[in-house]
Amino acid sequence: MAITVVGSVAFDSIETPAGRRERCLGGAATYFSLSASFFTDVRVIAVVGEDFGRRQEAVFQARNIDTRGIEHTAGKCFFWEGSYLENLNEAKTHTTDLNVFAAFEPKIPEAYRDSEFLFLANIDPVLQRCVREQMPDVRLVAGDTMNYWINDHRTALLEVLKGLDILLINDTEARVLGGNKNLVQAARAVMALGPKTLVVKHGEYGATLFHSSTPENETAERIYRAPAMPLEVVVDPTGAGDSFAGGFFGYLASQPELTPAAYRRAMFYGSVMGSFACERFGTERLQSLTRKEIDDRFILFRELTHLD
Amino acid sequence: MAITVVGSVAFDSIETPAGRRERCLGGAATYFSLSASFFTDVRVIAVVGEDFGRRQEAVFQARNIDTRGIEHTAGKCFFWEGSYLENLNEAKTHTTDLNVFAAFEPKIPEAYRDSEFLFLANIDPVLQRCVREQMPDVRLVAGDTMNYWINDHRTALLEVLKGLDILLINDTEARVLGGNKNLVQAARAVMALGPKTLVVKHGEYGATLFHSSTPENETAERIYRAPAMPLEVVVDPTGAGDSFAGGFFGYLASQPELTPAAYRRAMFYGSVMGSFACERFGTERLQSLTRKEIDDRFILFRELTHLD
Repeated sequence: MAITVVGSVAFDSIETPAGRRERCLGGAATYFSLSASFFTDVRVIAVVGEDFGRRQEAVFQARNIDTRGIEHTAGKCFFWEGSYLENLNEAKTHTTDLNVFAAFEPKIPEAYRDSEFLFLANIDPVLQRCVREQMPDVRLVAGDTMNYWINDHRTALLEVLKGLDILLINDTEARVLGGNKNLVQAARAVMALGPKTLVVKHGEYGATLFHSSTPENETAERIYRAPAMPLEVVVDPTGAGDSFAGGFFGYLASQPELTPAAYRRAMFYGSVMGSFACERFGTERLQSLTRKEIDDRFILFRELTHLD
Repeated sequence: MAITVVGSVAFDSIETPAGRRERCLGGAATYFSLSASFFTDVRVIAVVGEDFGRRQEAVFQARNIDTRGIEHTAGKCFFWEGSYLENLNEAKTHTTDLNVFAAFEPKIPEAYRDSEFLFLANIDPVLQRCVREQMPDVRLVAGDTMNYWINDHRTALLEVLKGLDILLINDTEARVLGGNKNLVQAARAVMALGPKTLVVKHGEYGATLFHSSTPENETAERIYRAPAMPLEVVVDPTGAGDSFAGGFFGYLASQPELTPAAYRRAMFYGSVMGSFACERFGTERLQSLTRKEIDDRFILFRELTHLD
């Protein structure tokens, strides 16, 4: 099944203990779609400026990602500058220039309308909602957000959450959004806001999937934990969360049935894709990746965590 | 196989968001031995004061723990007072009174001499070494330590590490001791100091086992990750790490062969015992626990993390 994703396509300047890169291709929708493209068809909705050229376009084309929903307009692409010099788990943002995203009005190409899966990548919740409302009939909607929207745009975000089946956020975001330091209690509070399924990413410690229980099925498959691989060298964590989301949602979209077992494997594929993303700057590793490498790492993750 | 453990037997006054308890029975050797006693015979070496009475003794007796190595002397037991009001993952220490431990000279009872397993719980490395040297022929030696000894008693600690097969510490301790923020690199640096196996505990995120590779066997079983269960209510994390160590080492001591599979199951039992310890204040939960509850939670942990 095809996934439509809306989110940023951007340039990032990144500094980590491994070095510095100026104006890499980046953005949540870019990482998500590269990652998901290993599992299913992906269609992107975004806006770019005149600085987005053939070289950037080619990155999407190499993975057969549909870019007809990327609007080209006057101005410059979204730009982010950040560093991870003190803490590889948390970026320090130096610059965020919305540029062409400031006046973005997402439109859904006709060819995208039959997408059964929709991913609302981390972006202004007003834009997330605008896309969600234009695609009311999708089968499964997942989304991401960040502390900035949770703290300063809560009302708009709460509207988005009502329309989500799955929310993917990190620990801190889950605790802030759920208003509780205890992860299980925070998860319950977040799921009460809309999403029946919550994926909380713990960075190098993996991720936890929470399914809200139903009156008929109070205990089944409520919690699942997937590992992350302890990496010896983390070159650049930018986009690891979006790559996790791409592996997770891309795998789900590739499955005939959304069984509990499919969700478990999706969590593993999410962790696998997140671990690859950190191995090189920007999208470099996702661009060079093969499906065989993904499946080999899946097996490695299984060995890393299974009793037998 | 019997385990001899040396460490503190103490009284703790503890404050957590769930409440406050004055002078609970505590200490690393207490938690370790209660936890390990579900798997194998345990013998304790410690020193207590006149405030250690029949009620405290009965806690050990109820689990058939050999207390002949607990020396009774004039004075008061080791006393610790701490709180977890802001952060359940890290205690804030208010008081540490060594009391009878200040002049402790550990002696090994004759009846303990055939122990094949030795655990050096978190205590002054000078005392750990003293016990280690009195038991040169044990089959497997594991130990614990903390930042205080790593930072301020490094020379004495390094001597202890040379005599350890397995070291169990937490993330922060591994990074400080290994002098590296990257966990994999820190683990390698720590293993170069002596222990061939390192268990790094990540609190609510589980634990990672590192085996140092040998020239003959460079990749086999080098890393294994065990989960922790996301707990809805953490009443008191005191002793969770010692209880982890008790489950881990107790299970290993119960096994006929120390295979990689045995280490994997030991990691799971460690996580299981750590999770129980947090459910009540002090040693309460370990005292009421049954082997059936332990095995049920083992199965739950398997379901929580396994693909099928």
